[in-house]
Amino acid sequence: MINNLDLDRLFNPKRVAMIGASANFGKWGNIILFNILKAGFKGEIVPVNPKKKSILGLDCYASVGDIPGEIDLAIITTPSKFVLSMMDEIGAKKIPFAIVVTANFSEAGEVGKAEEVELVASAKKNGIRLVGPNTMGIFSSKSCLHALMPMLMPLHGTVSMFSQSGNVGVQMMDYGQNENVGFEKFVSSGNEGDLSCNDYLNYFAHDKNTKVIIGYIEGIEDGSTFLPIAKMASRKKPIIIMKGGRTRTGSKAAASHTGSMAGSFKINLAAFRQAGIIEAHTSLELIDCAKAFSHYPIPKGNRVGIVTRGGGWGVIAADSCEEAGLEVPELPADIIKEIDKLLPDYWNRGNPIDMVATISHDPMTQIIRLLAEWDGVDSVIALGAGFRSFKIQHSSTTQFSKEVQESLDFLGDLRKQDADKPDPVLQYISDLVKETKKPIFSVSTGSDYAHKHYFENYEIVSYPTPERAVRVLKHMCEYGCYISSL
Amino acid sequence: MINNLDLDRLFNPKRVAMIGASANFGKWGNIILFNILKAGFKGEIVPVNPKKKSILGLDCYASVGDIPGEIDLAIITTPSKFVLSMMDEIGAKKIPFAIVVTANFSEAGEVGKAEEVELVASAKKNGIRLVGPNTMGIFSSKSCLHALMPMLMPLHGTVSMFSQSGNVGVQMMDYGQNENVGFEKFVSSGNEGDLSCNDYLNYFAHDKNTKVIIGYIEGIEDGSTFLPIAKMASRKKPIIIMKGGRTRTGSKAAASHTGSMAGSFKINLAAFRQAGIIEAHTSLELIDCAKAFSHYPIPKGNRVGIVTRGGGWGVIAADSCEEAGLEVPELPADIIKEIDKLLPDYWNRGNPIDMVATISHDPMTQIIRLLAEWDGVDSVIALGAGFRSFKIQHSSTTQFSKEVQESLDFLGDLRKQDADKPDPVLQYISDLVKETKKPIFSVSTGSDYAHKHYFENYEIVSYPTPERAVRVLKHMCEYGCYISSL
Repeated sequence: MINNLDLDRLFNPKRVAMIGASANFGKWGNIILFNILKAGFKGEIVPVNPKKKSILGLDCYASVGDIPGEIDLAIITTPSKFVLSMMDEIGAKKIPFAIVVTANFSEAGEVGKAEEVELVASAKKNGIRLVGPNTMGIFSSKSCLHALMPMLMPLHGTVSMFSQSGNVGVQMMDYGQNENVGFEKFVSSGNEGDLSCNDYLNYFAHDKNTKVIIGYIEGIEDGSTFLPIAKMASRKKPIIIMKGGRTRTGSKAAASHTGSMAGSFKINLAAFRQAGIIEAHTSLELIDCAKAFSHYPIPKGNRVGIVTRGGGWGVIAADSCEEAGLEVPELPADIIKEIDKLLPDYWNRGNPIDMVATISHDPMTQIIRLLAEWDGVDSVIALGAGFRSFKIQHSSTTQFSKEVQESLDFLGDLRKQDADKPDPVLQYISDLVKETKKPIFSVSTGSDYAHKHYFENYEIVSYPTPERAVRVLKHMCEYGCYISSL
Repeated sequence: MINNLDLDRLFNPKRVAMIGASANFGKWGNIILFNILKAGFKGEIVPVNPKKKSILGLDCYASVGDIPGEIDLAIITTPSKFVLSMMDEIGAKKIPFAIVVTANFSEAGEVGKAEEVELVASAKKNGIRLVGPNTMGIFSSKSCLHALMPMLMPLHGTVSMFSQSGNVGVQMMDYGQNENVGFEKFVSSGNEGDLSCNDYLNYFAHDKNTKVIIGYIEGIEDGSTFLPIAKMASRKKPIIIMKGGRTRTGSKAAASHTGSMAGSFKINLAAFRQAGIIEAHTSLELIDCAKAFSHYPIPKGNRVGIVTRGGGWGVIAADSCEEAGLEVPELPADIIKEIDKLLPDYWNRGNPIDMVATISHDPMTQIIRLLAEWDGVDSVIALGAGFRSFKIQHSSTTQFSKEVQESLDFLGDLRKQDADKPDPVLQYISDLVKETKKPIFSVSTGSDYAHKHYFENYEIVSYPTPERAVRVLKHMCEYGCYISSL
């Protein structure tokens, strides 16, 4: 297991040597270099290429040995046949870390496997710790290190991720851009020739900037090390893992993807659960969980209060809750009495609370407060909160006559709402989450989903369907339950 | 059961009387009127209001009786106390249909229930068939009749929907705008005082413009009529239903939402299945199914060929397939031999086919063709088809130096791709679906999801995650299996 202080140097290096940019395979290196520059890396990056004087405006050195001063990290994108020979050079320069982006190692068959063994041995001999080979890179929010193969600019936040699939990993960050999930650190662990998920999990567990850990795992070489680390880590912060290769078909595919790892340790989901790991069953669930866990407090129990602008959505949310093992308790008399003052007299007097076409803001916010402050529930789902369809649909029309404007006046505060102005309901929810320490999910039920806007302005967690909110809430409850059982 | 020819008049009326726009509750009427005008209704719309000379530029009549000529449909948005008295007037004018948008009937308690009974009796006496009361309206693509409460402009297409929840229904059309699901007809069935899901289902079954029927149902008054209709309809076209009130908690919520209907007939999902109905378990699944069923042929079996740009996504797709009961068969020697010519020699020689970082278009399209033409599979999932992250991420930067441009040249055709130009892979898939009559799903695995673009230009079905594609494919296979078992 590598020391966590050391890994801090990997993720937040002061000086990075970029080896192989503008070489053959190094075309990817140019993209990584471009990403690093574009993101405004806070350290210094030094390209190495014997055939170039400068790359992307940076002075280029003929060899690693020629670079003056200390280097913390080497990123290697040379063709695979040159990677091994780099180790002695990097070792001589006393560079403690190398990210080997280059592929064609153990994932590419027997020859590659042998070459990887040789590479890892040489790195060890030279005192170098390796990320990869066959990695899509790392990302660190603090140092703005976007050493990633694809051109994406992840949002910065508190989620850290390790992924045994480069594509799945970087695309989670890509989804994150739309779903407003910000990342603190990311590593594509590649073939895990040296550093493995165990190291990254241990590091993220102790990293004070990481609030939530997510991971994509196909197999773990050393399960007897992984599980105790996971158990330690899950006490500190939530770990949500998606497991690839759960089935015979999937694990066969995994065997040819991450090679030997997939078969060596039969990951037992029950063991995961015992270690306090939350299992995301789908990729969407993984990113949905990352969003909620990173922004909201863990509910103290499984009782949910639901308020809805549309009766049908309340029914769907109630079904989802029961199917997820969440409770939707009856409303007590005092809350019914309070809501009697807010809604038409034929309101349903039940949970979910159906607002029966009452569309202005006030009853919605007041009911959300009544639910959030009620000690009978641990979380709230507000269906149709942040509802601004009227606004959105209208802004696009030119036939918006004065007469229609007037007839829309009954929509009151909803109508006057401007997309650029604070949304009173969302602002209210945001404040109330902080005040009551209960998660309050907004479900927009429509194309005015607008996570980005919601998030940036209000730090509230929103989903487009109740089922997605409930699924995440179930996982939050599981985690809360696990923690309180310790 | 109402005659289908009659219902054609409801959905495609020549002349519509709009009763109660600009009245009290009629503020909603103004929105409906506005929607109808904005959408360019092909018929004529005549507002009725004793207090107005004109509404939204249209001449207004003091009463229904004052309107010259024949009227096919009355849309009523007057306050509930005036609705009953309208029946005699509408009857005298021999208007065959009335959509009662007005609420506060059976959903609002005992008094409302009694008033609804009276209203329905009067309508019957007057020869009027009712939609609602408490409906959010109807939509018809052919006549451009957007008689809907919310301001949304559904995409036109071949999906028809009935919904016992107005909100769930209209928001499905709202999702449809983002997911590129076009609607042929829609009806919010409201309290079903008269016309019910049975009538609409029967009508949609015989409607030649409707290719797929979707529905949201909480309860059915007359199950012994519904099931035979469903059985007849599902032989003609796919029916995908989402059932609200599946659980104790959900059905309690449904009882207060759609009132008596929810409890009167315990919908048995097994009976649904026997009638050939596909059950969507989530709202997302409902719209995802609508998209695939309306655009793609039904696969002949459950065998899936998978090609992926990222190994991990292939693993996830393979897991999903097995969990959904779909088969991912081994590749035969002749296909392996063909792919040997296209991919690096260390490719996995298995299904899913991992393209191992081969990113240009050619191998992807050729492998998709090999799979689609192979008689060993009935459908294809292409993960990372239509991949254009490079393009998208770059268009937003100003630091895009000539040097980076050059170093990106190895991306070849991907780089040169313009968002506004036809995508060669997607065009290829679109043609191949028509040619092979097998569904080929594109999964974009990233924020370049861009359904709209994909759809409008290529008529291909795309999802952002493999799990969503597999879920839909499972339902298509179920339907195909049901049809071939008849």
